[in-house]
Amino acid sequence: MADEVILLDAWNSAFGMRVRVALAEKGIKYEYKEQDLGNKSPLLLKMNPIHKKVPVLIHNGKPICESAIIVQYIDEVWNDKAPLLPSDPYEKAQARFWVDYIDKKMYDVGRRVWSSKGEELEAVKKEIIQHLKLLEGELGDKPYFGGETFGFVDIGLIGFYSWFYTYETLGNFSIEAECPKLIAWAKRCMEKESVSKSLADPHKVYEFIKGIKKMLGLE
Amino acid sequence: MADEVILLDAWNSAFGMRVRVALAEKGIKYEYKEQDLGNKSPLLLKMNPIHKKVPVLIHNGKPICESAIIVQYIDEVWNDKAPLLPSDPYEKAQARFWVDYIDKKMYDVGRRVWSSKGEELEAVKKEIIQHLKLLEGELGDKPYFGGETFGFVDIGLIGFYSWFYTYETLGNFSIEAECPKLIAWAKRCMEKESVSKSLADPHKVYEFIKGIKKMLGLE
Repeated sequence: MADEVILLDAWNSAFGMRVRVALAEKGIKYEYKEQDLGNKSPLLLKMNPIHKKVPVLIHNGKPICESAIIVQYIDEVWNDKAPLLPSDPYEKAQARFWVDYIDKKMYDVGRRVWSSKGEELEAVKKEIIQHLKLLEGELGDKPYFGGETFGFVDIGLIGFYSWFYTYETLGNFSIEAECPKLIAWAKRCMEKESVSKSLADPHKVYEFIKGIKKMLGLE
Repeated sequence: MADEVILLDAWNSAFGMRVRVALAEKGIKYEYKEQDLGNKSPLLLKMNPIHKKVPVLIHNGKPICESAIIVQYIDEVWNDKAPLLPSDPYEKAQARFWVDYIDKKMYDVGRRVWSSKGEELEAVKKEIIQHLKLLEGELGDKPYFGGETFGFVDIGLIGFYSWFYTYETLGNFSIEAECPKLIAWAKRCMEKESVSKSLADPHKVYEFIKGIKKMLGLE
Protein backbone atom coordinates (compact mmCIF):
# COMPACT_ATOMS: atom_id res chain seq x y z
CA MET A 1 0.00 0.00 0.00
CA ALA A 2 1.34 3.43 -0.89
CA ASP A 3 1.65 5.86 1.97
CA GLU A 4 -1.01 8.55 2.21
CA VAL A 5 0.67 11.78 3.30
CA ILE A 6 -1.25 15.02 3.84
CA LEU A 7 0.16 18.30 5.08
CA LEU A 8 -2.05 20.88 6.78
CA ASP A 9 -0.11 24.09 6.47
CA ALA A 10 -0.22 27.84 5.90
CA TRP A 11 1.86 29.26 3.04
CA ASN A 12 3.73 31.80 5.18
CA SER A 13 4.45 29.59 8.21
CA ALA A 14 8.20 29.30 8.88
CA PHE A 15 7.37 26.14 10.83
CA GLY A 16 5.33 24.71 7.96
CA MET A 17 8.23 25.41 5.60
CA ARG A 18 10.38 23.10 7.75
CA VAL A 19 8.05 20.22 6.99
CA ARG A 20 7.82 21.09 3.29
CA VAL A 21 11.63 21.13 3.02
CA ALA A 22 11.98 17.83 4.91
CA LEU A 23 9.38 16.12 2.69
CA ALA A 24 11.12 17.50 -0.42
CA GLU A 25 14.54 16.34 0.82
CA LYS A 26 13.13 12.84 1.22
CA GLY A 27 11.29 12.98 -2.12
CA ILE A 28 7.93 12.18 -0.49
CA LYS A 29 4.77 12.90 -2.47
CA TYR A 30 2.02 14.51 -0.43
CA GLU A 31 -1.20 16.39 -0.63
CA TYR A 32 -0.87 20.00 0.52
CA LYS A 33 -3.94 21.50 2.20
CA GLU A 34 -3.67 25.23 2.81
CA GLN A 35 -5.41 26.22 6.05
CA ASP A 36 -7.24 29.45 6.80
CA LEU A 37 -5.99 30.26 10.30
CA GLY A 38 -8.65 32.94 10.70
CA ASN A 39 -11.34 30.30 10.24
CA LYS A 40 -9.92 26.94 11.27
CA SER A 41 -11.17 23.88 9.42
CA PRO A 42 -12.87 20.94 11.17
CA LEU A 43 -9.98 18.80 9.84
CA LEU A 44 -7.33 20.98 11.53
CA LEU A 45 -9.29 21.06 14.80
CA LYS A 46 -9.69 17.30 14.69
CA MET A 47 -6.07 16.59 13.84
CA ASN A 48 -4.51 19.08 16.27
CA PRO A 49 -7.10 19.55 19.03
CA ILE A 50 -4.49 20.61 21.59
CA HIS A 51 -2.69 23.47 19.85
CA LYS A 52 -5.01 23.99 16.82
CA LYS A 53 -1.97 25.10 14.80
CA VAL A 54 -0.23 24.27 11.56
CA PRO A 55 1.74 22.38 10.43
CA VAL A 56 0.15 18.97 10.92
CA LEU A 57 1.37 15.95 8.98
CA ILE A 58 -1.24 13.25 8.51
CA HIS A 59 0.42 9.95 7.67
CA ASN A 60 -1.97 7.13 6.79
CA GLY A 61 -4.71 8.89 8.75
CA LYS A 62 -2.63 9.57 11.88
CA PRO A 63 -1.66 13.16 12.81
CA ILE A 64 1.78 14.34 13.92
CA CYS A 65 2.01 17.88 15.30
CA GLU A 66 4.78 20.41 16.10
CA SER A 67 7.22 21.04 13.29
CA ALA A 68 10.46 19.88 14.95
CA ILE A 69 8.73 16.66 16.00
CA ILE A 70 7.32 16.17 12.51
CA VAL A 71 10.77 16.59 10.90
CA GLN A 72 12.24 13.99 13.28
CA TYR A 73 9.31 11.67 12.49
CA ILE A 74 9.90 12.07 8.74
CA ASP A 75 13.59 11.33 9.24
CA GLU A 76 12.84 8.19 11.25
CA VAL A 77 10.12 6.78 8.96
CA TRP A 78 11.76 7.52 5.61
CA ASN A 79 15.25 6.55 6.73
CA ASP A 80 16.46 5.17 3.41
CA LYS A 81 17.67 8.50 1.99
CA ALA A 82 18.83 12.03 2.87
CA PRO A 83 19.39 11.63 6.64
CA LEU A 84 18.41 14.89 8.33
CA LEU A 85 19.63 14.34 11.88
CA PRO A 86 23.18 13.26 12.68
CA SER A 87 23.52 9.63 13.78
CA ASP A 88 25.95 10.39 16.62
CA PRO A 89 23.98 10.96 19.86
CA TYR A 90 26.04 13.99 20.91
CA GLU A 91 25.74 15.70 17.53
CA LYS A 92 22.05 14.82 17.52
CA ALA A 93 21.60 16.46 20.95
CA GLN A 94 23.41 19.58 19.68
CA ALA A 95 21.18 19.73 16.59
CA ARG A 96 18.09 19.39 18.79
CA PHE A 97 19.44 22.11 21.08
CA TRP A 98 19.73 24.62 18.23
CA VAL A 99 16.33 23.83 16.75
CA ASP A 100 14.87 24.23 20.24
CA TYR A 101 16.69 27.58 20.51
CA ILE A 102 15.16 28.70 17.20
CA ASP A 103 11.72 27.54 18.43
CA LYS A 104 12.05 29.47 21.67
CA LYS A 105 13.37 32.72 20.20
CA MET A 106 12.78 33.38 16.49
CA TYR A 107 9.01 33.40 16.08
CA ASP A 108 8.41 35.63 19.07
CA VAL A 109 11.19 38.12 18.34
CA GLY A 110 10.21 38.23 14.66
CA ARG A 111 6.61 39.04 15.55
CA ARG A 112 7.80 41.82 17.84
CA VAL A 113 9.94 43.30 15.04
CA TRP A 114 6.93 43.80 12.77
CA SER A 115 4.52 44.83 15.53
CA SER A 116 6.71 47.39 17.35
CA LYS A 117 7.52 51.06 16.91
CA GLY A 118 10.00 53.62 18.23
CA GLU A 119 12.13 52.68 21.22
CA GLU A 120 10.55 49.24 21.53
CA LEU A 121 11.47 48.52 17.90
CA GLU A 122 15.06 49.65 18.49
CA ALA A 123 15.32 47.26 21.46
CA VAL A 124 13.80 44.34 19.57
CA LYS A 125 16.11 44.93 16.58
CA LYS A 126 19.09 44.57 18.91
CA GLU A 127 17.52 41.42 20.27
CA ILE A 128 16.90 39.73 16.91
CA ILE A 129 20.41 40.61 15.74
CA GLN A 130 21.80 39.09 18.93
CA HIS A 131 19.92 35.82 18.22
CA LEU A 132 21.03 35.78 14.59
CA LYS A 133 24.65 36.50 15.49
CA LEU A 134 24.59 33.65 17.97
CA LEU A 135 23.25 31.34 15.27
CA GLU A 136 25.88 32.68 12.85
CA GLY A 137 28.55 31.90 15.45
CA GLU A 138 27.27 28.33 15.70
CA LEU A 139 27.39 28.06 11.88
CA GLY A 140 30.98 29.31 11.87
CA ASP A 141 32.77 28.59 8.63
CA LYS A 142 30.81 25.44 7.86
CA PRO A 143 28.68 25.42 4.70
CA TYR A 144 25.69 24.12 6.69
CA PHE A 145 24.88 23.95 10.41
CA GLY A 146 25.40 20.21 10.34
CA GLY A 147 28.74 20.53 8.52
CA GLU A 148 29.12 19.45 4.91
CA THR A 149 25.49 18.40 4.47
CA PHE A 150 22.19 20.19 4.85
CA GLY A 151 20.25 18.90 7.86
CA PHE A 152 17.98 19.41 10.87
CA VAL A 153 19.22 22.82 12.05
CA ASP A 154 19.31 24.18 8.49
CA ILE A 155 15.71 23.02 8.08
CA GLY A 156 14.85 24.52 11.46
CA LEU A 157 16.04 28.00 10.54
CA ILE A 158 15.64 28.40 6.79
CA GLY A 159 11.87 29.13 6.84
CA PHE A 160 12.59 32.37 8.71
CA TYR A 161 14.64 33.53 5.72
CA SER A 162 11.29 34.16 3.99
CA TRP A 163 10.58 36.64 6.78
CA PHE A 164 13.94 38.46 6.77
CA TYR A 165 12.80 40.95 4.10
CA THR A 166 9.78 41.85 6.26
CA TYR A 167 11.91 42.28 9.38
CA GLU A 168 14.47 44.37 7.49
CA THR A 169 11.98 46.58 5.68
CA LEU A 170 9.71 47.26 8.63
CA GLY A 171 12.64 47.53 11.04
CA ASN A 172 14.83 49.55 8.67
CA PHE A 173 18.00 47.51 9.13
CA SER A 174 20.08 45.03 7.15
CA ILE A 175 20.58 41.50 8.39
CA GLU A 176 23.26 40.99 5.74
CA ALA A 177 25.28 43.92 7.12
CA GLU A 178 25.13 42.36 10.59
CA CYS A 179 25.36 38.67 9.69
CA PRO A 180 26.96 38.25 6.24
CA LYS A 181 27.86 34.59 6.78
CA LEU A 182 24.31 33.75 7.79
CA ILE A 183 22.96 35.34 4.63
CA ALA A 184 25.56 33.48 2.56
CA TRP A 185 24.33 30.29 4.25
CA ALA A 186 20.68 31.13 3.43
CA LYS A 187 21.58 31.76 -0.23
CA ARG A 188 23.47 28.45 -0.29
CA CYS A 189 20.37 26.70 1.06
CA MET A 190 18.22 28.43 -1.58
CA GLU A 191 20.31 26.78 -4.28
CA LYS A 192 18.70 23.51 -3.23
CA GLU A 193 15.41 22.86 -5.00
CA SER A 194 13.98 21.31 -1.81
CA VAL A 195 14.36 24.73 -0.18
CA SER A 196 13.62 27.16 -3.01
CA LYS A 197 10.36 25.46 -3.93
CA SER A 198 9.24 25.21 -0.27
CA LEU A 199 9.82 28.76 0.91
CA ALA A 200 7.28 31.56 0.67
CA ASP A 201 8.05 34.58 -1.51
CA PRO A 202 9.52 37.24 0.87
CA HIS A 203 7.61 40.03 -0.92
CA LYS A 204 4.31 38.21 -0.42
CA VAL A 205 5.11 37.74 3.27
CA TYR A 206 5.79 41.49 3.46
CA GLU A 207 2.50 42.38 1.76
CA PHE A 208 0.66 39.99 4.07
CA ILE A 209 2.19 41.59 7.17
CA LYS A 210 1.50 45.11 5.83
CA GLY A 211 -2.15 44.03 5.58
CA ILE A 212 -2.14 42.64 9.13
CA LYS A 213 -0.57 45.85 10.48
CA LYS A 214 -3.24 47.92 8.74
CA MET A 215 -5.97 45.69 10.16
CA LEU A 216 -4.53 45.99 13.67
CA GLY A 217 -4.03 49.75 13.37
CA LEU A 218 -0.25 49.39 13.77
CA GLU A 219 0.72 51.62 10.86
CA MET B 1 37.77 4.05 30.02
CA ALA B 2 34.83 4.53 32.37
CA ASP B 3 32.41 7.28 31.45
CA GLU B 4 32.66 10.49 33.45
CA VAL B 5 29.15 11.79 34.05
CA ILE B 6 28.45 15.01 35.94
CA LEU B 7 25.07 16.61 36.52
CA LEU B 8 24.72 20.32 37.20
CA ASP B 9 21.34 20.65 38.83
CA ALA B 10 19.24 22.39 41.47
CA TRP B 11 17.46 20.21 44.05
CA ASN B 12 13.97 21.62 43.38
CA SER B 13 14.11 21.74 39.57
CA ALA B 14 11.33 19.65 38.01
CA PHE B 15 13.46 19.60 34.85
CA GLY B 16 16.54 18.47 36.75
CA MET B 17 14.50 15.67 38.32
CA ARG B 18 13.82 14.34 34.82
CA VAL B 19 17.52 13.83 34.30
CA ARG B 20 18.02 12.29 37.76
CA VAL B 21 15.20 9.81 37.11
CA ALA B 22 16.56 8.92 33.64
CA LEU B 23 20.07 8.33 35.00
CA ALA B 24 18.64 6.21 37.83
CA GLU B 25 16.52 4.18 35.38
CA LYS B 26 19.66 3.42 33.40
CA GLY B 27 21.73 2.73 36.52
CA ILE B 28 24.35 5.31 35.56
CA LYS B 29 26.71 6.52 38.27
CA TYR B 30 27.31 10.26 38.23
CA GLU B 31 28.60 13.15 40.23
CA TYR B 32 25.84 15.53 41.33
CA LYS B 33 26.82 19.19 41.59
CA GLU B 34 24.16 21.36 43.20
CA GLN B 35 24.09 24.82 41.63
CA ASP B 36 23.27 28.12 43.31
CA LEU B 37 21.03 29.79 40.74
CA GLY B 38 21.27 33.11 42.59
CA ASN B 39 25.03 33.09 42.07
CA LYS B 40 25.79 31.01 39.00
CA SER B 41 29.07 29.10 38.98
CA PRO B 42 31.75 29.61 36.32
CA LEU B 43 31.24 25.91 35.45
CA LEU B 44 27.50 26.39 34.76
CA LEU B 45 28.15 29.53 32.71
CA LYS B 46 30.83 27.72 30.72
CA MET B 47 28.76 24.60 30.12
CA ASN B 48 25.47 26.34 29.28
CA PRO B 49 26.49 29.79 27.98
CA ILE B 50 23.27 30.21 25.98
CA HIS B 51 20.56 29.61 28.58
CA LYS B 52 22.68 29.59 31.79
CA LYS B 53 20.19 27.13 33.30
CA VAL B 54 20.14 23.74 34.97
CA PRO B 55 20.10 20.86 34.31
CA VAL B 56 23.29 20.33 32.33
CA LEU B 57 24.71 16.85 31.83
CA ILE B 58 28.46 16.75 31.27
CA HIS B 59 29.46 13.49 29.62
CA ASN B 60 33.20 12.96 29.27
CA GLY B 61 33.68 16.74 29.36
CA LYS B 62 30.99 17.60 26.82
CA PRO B 63 27.82 19.44 27.92
CA ILE B 64 24.26 18.58 26.94
CA CYS B 65 21.56 21.12 27.84
CA GLU B 66 17.74 21.20 28.03
CA SER B 67 16.18 18.38 30.02
CA ALA B 68 14.09 16.72 27.29
CA ILE B 69 17.13 16.69 25.02
CA ILE B 70 19.31 15.29 27.81
CA VAL B 71 16.85 12.45 28.50
CA GLN B 72 16.81 11.52 24.81
CA TYR B 73 20.62 11.65 24.77
CA ILE B 74 20.80 9.34 27.80
CA ASP B 75 18.39 6.94 26.12
CA GLU B 76 20.43 6.89 22.91
CA VAL B 77 23.88 6.53 24.54
CA TRP B 78 22.97 3.97 27.21
CA ASN B 79 20.70 1.93 24.95
CA ASP B 80 21.42 -1.48 26.46
CA LYS B 81 18.78 -1.27 29.23
CA ALA B 82 15.50 0.39 30.29
CA PRO B 83 14.48 2.00 26.98
CA LEU B 84 12.80 5.32 27.77
CA LEU B 85 11.39 6.31 24.37
CA PRO B 86 9.21 3.98 22.30
CA SER B 87 10.95 2.48 19.26
CA ASP B 88 7.99 3.00 16.90
CA PRO B 89 8.36 6.38 15.15
CA TYR B 90 4.70 7.33 15.60
CA GLU B 91 4.64 6.48 19.30
CA LYS B 92 7.95 8.30 19.66
CA ALA B 93 6.46 11.42 18.02
CA GLN B 94 3.47 11.24 20.38
CA ALA B 95 5.76 10.92 23.42
CA ARG B 96 7.79 13.92 22.22
CA PHE B 97 4.55 15.85 21.67
CA TRP B 98 3.44 15.38 25.29
CA VAL B 99 6.82 16.22 26.78
CA ASP B 100 6.85 19.33 24.60
CA TYR B 101 3.34 20.15 25.90
CA ILE B 102 4.57 19.80 29.50
CA ASP B 103 7.58 22.02 28.66
CA LYS B 104 5.37 24.71 27.15
CA LYS B 105 2.72 24.77 29.87
CA MET B 106 3.59 23.37 33.28
CA TYR B 107 6.51 25.49 34.51
CA ASP B 108 4.88 28.75 33.59
CA VAL B 109 1.42 27.94 34.94
CA GLY B 110 2.94 26.48 38.12
CA ARG B 111 4.94 29.65 38.73
CA ARG B 112 1.80 31.72 38.26
CA VAL B 113 -0.08 29.58 40.81
CA TRP B 114 2.38 30.40 43.59
CA SER B 115 2.91 34.04 42.58
CA SER B 116 -0.74 35.09 42.10
CA LYS B 117 -3.54 36.28 44.37
CA GLY B 118 -7.28 36.86 44.23
CA GLU B 119 -8.98 36.76 40.82
CA GLU B 120 -5.74 36.10 39.00
CA LEU B 121 -5.14 33.05 41.20
CA GLU B 122 -8.66 31.77 40.55
CA ALA B 123 -8.05 32.04 36.79
CA VAL B 124 -4.66 30.34 36.95
CA LYS B 125 -6.08 27.49 39.09
CA LYS B 126 -8.63 26.79 36.36
CA GLU B 127 -5.81 26.88 33.85
CA ILE B 128 -3.52 24.43 35.67
CA ILE B 129 -6.43 22.05 36.26
CA GLN B 130 -7.26 22.21 32.56
CA HIS B 131 -3.66 21.22 31.68
CA LEU B 132 -3.62 18.43 34.25
CA LYS B 133 -7.00 17.08 33.12
CA LEU B 134 -5.75 17.03 29.54
CA LEU B 135 -2.69 15.06 30.64
CA GLU B 136 -4.93 12.76 32.70
CA GLY B 137 -7.04 12.18 29.58
CA GLU B 138 -3.92 11.23 27.65
CA LEU B 139 -2.95 8.81 30.44
CA GLY B 140 -6.42 7.24 30.33
CA ASP B 141 -6.54 3.86 32.04
CA LYS B 142 -2.94 2.99 31.29
CA PRO B 143 -0.60 2.47 34.25
CA TYR B 144 1.98 4.78 32.64
CA PHE B 145 1.82 7.33 29.83
CA GLY B 146 3.77 4.96 27.61
CA GLY B 147 1.50 2.03 28.44
CA GLU B 148 2.74 -0.85 30.56
CA THR B 149 6.19 0.58 31.14
CA PHE B 150 7.47 3.80 32.65
CA GLY B 151 9.01 6.04 29.99
CA PHE B 152 9.71 9.46 28.46
CA VAL B 153 6.37 11.18 29.21
CA ASP B 154 6.29 9.81 32.76
CA ILE B 155 9.80 11.18 33.26
CA GLY B 156 8.74 14.46 31.66
CA LEU B 157 5.89 15.05 34.12
CA ILE B 158 6.82 13.35 37.39
CA GLY B 159 9.16 16.11 38.63
CA PHE B 160 6.19 18.46 38.86
CA TYR B 161 4.62 16.09 41.40
CA SER B 162 7.14 17.50 43.91
CA TRP B 163 5.49 20.86 43.33
CA PHE B 164 1.84 19.76 43.59
CA TYR B 165 1.76 20.25 47.38
CA THR B 166 2.96 23.85 46.91
CA TYR B 167 0.37 24.55 44.20
CA GLU B 168 -2.41 22.99 46.28
CA THR B 169 -1.49 24.66 49.56
CA LEU B 170 -0.90 28.14 48.18
CA GLY B 171 -3.82 27.85 45.74
CA ASN B 172 -6.16 26.19 48.26
CA PHE B 173 -7.36 23.40 45.97
CA SER B 174 -6.93 19.66 45.62
CA ILE B 175 -5.38 18.19 42.50
CA GLU B 176 -6.47 14.71 43.65
CA ALA B 177 -10.12 15.83 43.78
CA GLU B 178 -9.83 17.09 40.19
CA CYS B 179 -7.52 14.45 38.73
CA PRO B 180 -7.66 11.26 40.81
CA LYS B 181 -6.18 9.07 38.07
CA LEU B 182 -3.24 11.40 37.64
CA ILE B 183 -2.48 11.26 41.36
CA ALA B 184 -2.78 7.45 41.30
CA TRP B 185 -0.27 7.50 38.42
CA ALA B 186 2.12 9.73 40.40
CA LYS B 187 1.91 7.41 43.42
CA ARG B 188 2.57 4.45 41.12
CA CYS B 189 5.67 6.22 39.78
CA MET B 190 6.81 6.96 43.35
CA GLU B 191 6.90 3.21 44.03
CA LYS B 192 9.89 3.10 41.70
CA GLU B 193 13.16 3.75 43.49
CA SER B 194 14.45 5.66 40.44
CA VAL B 195 11.67 8.19 41.03
CA SER B 196 11.36 8.30 44.82
CA LYS B 197 15.08 8.88 45.33
CA SER B 198 15.22 11.56 42.57
CA LEU B 199 12.30 13.78 43.55
CA ALA B 200 12.52 16.70 45.96
CA ASP B 201 10.57 16.59 49.24
CA PRO B 202 7.28 18.45 48.56
CA HIS B 203 7.38 20.10 51.99
CA LYS B 204 10.87 21.46 51.33
CA VAL B 205 9.70 22.84 47.98
CA TYR B 206 6.81 24.52 49.83
CA GLU B 207 9.12 26.06 52.45
CA PHE B 208 11.43 27.24 49.69
CA ILE B 209 8.59 28.94 47.82
CA LYS B 210 7.24 30.47 51.04
CA GLY B 211 10.68 32.01 51.47
CA ILE B 212 10.72 33.30 47.89
CA LYS B 213 7.24 34.83 48.32
CA LYS B 214 8.36 36.58 51.48
CA MET B 215 11.47 37.90 49.75
CA LEU B 216 9.38 39.19 46.81
CA GLY B 217 6.73 40.71 49.08
CA LEU B 218 4.05 38.39 47.70
CA GLU B 219 2.64 37.31 51.06
